[in-house]
Amino acid sequence: MVHRKTVLATGVFDILHPGHIRFLEESKKKGGPRATLVVVVATDKTVKDRKGHGPTLSESDRLELVSALRPVNRAVLGHEKVDFLGVLHELKPDIVCVGYDQNDIKRRVVKLVADQKLPIRVVQIQKFGRNGLNSSTGVKKKIARNWPRTSSAR
Amino acid sequence: MVHRKTVLATGVFDILHPGHIRFLEESKKKGGPRATLVVVVATDKTVKDRKGHGPTLSESDRLELVSALRPVNRAVLGHEKVDFLGVLHELKPDIVCVGYDQNDIKRRVVKLVADQKLPIRVVQIQKFGRNGLNSSTGVKKKIARNWPRTSSAR
Repeated sequence: MVHRKTVLATGVFDILHPGHIRFLEESKKKGGPRATLVVVVATDKTVKDRKGHGPTLSESDRLELVSALRPVNRAVLGHEKVDFLGVLHELKPDIVCVGYDQNDIKRRVVKLVADQKLPIRVVQIQKFGRNGLNSSTGVKKKIARNWPRTSSAR
Repeated sequence: MVHRKTVLATGVFDILHPGHIRFLEESKKKGGPRATLVVVVATDKTVKDRKGHGPTLSESDRLELVSALRPVNRAVLGHEKVDFLGVLHELKPDIVCVGYDQNDIKRRVVKLVADQKLPIRVVQIQKFGRNGLNSSTGVKKKIARNWPRTSSAR
């Protein structure tokens, strides 16, 4: 029986944009054709601790959105406090994918994997060269700049 | 052979929130267990013509995001000009679902279906009673109000 690889990716996923979709699709590919992609969505507390302010959408909204994305097999909330070792032990990934803007997470996971001698590969996914809005910050900036002009509903 | 029903839903889908996911899931359910959900994403021009300003995300970004949502079997851009009859002839849905805030679209589709004697059912999906942000406008308001405090990246 072929072992189905588990790929783990993590993020805040506050305002979804195509860069998120490509990051997740690319991460899943790293696990081969039948990989399972598990996404750890950062809790509101984790975001607040790290950035000094909470995200726009609540953790339950963000979890619901990420769960609805086709490449995602399972989405879970992170621990109340950032706890990479706990997450790795719990979800037992074969591969951890980090985004181009997640150097801090990459460093911490690489160190953990080495220290604990875990059989986990850490892969950094490159930024996708493209036009258009490719970051939550970019989207938010545009909204703030244009408000209240861009007051469109659904 | 059982006819697989095609359900059509439409919208701008500028900043995704859980209300969108629930609207799409609920729409798909209206077509029974093996329904195909086709989503028409409004073009930038349509949004601009209707609201006087364009959306935050471009039509190609919005199309990419909607295509990545699990309930969506196919997402297409609308016509340059709002053209419901053209879309109905092209996609031949059994059911058209409109959101609670799409009364204008509902009226126009109901009239078209009656005038043209098309075998199409029009269903309005109710608003989901819940806490949290449930509209793109609500999300944008919160971002604009908090900017630049909520300058979180991925």
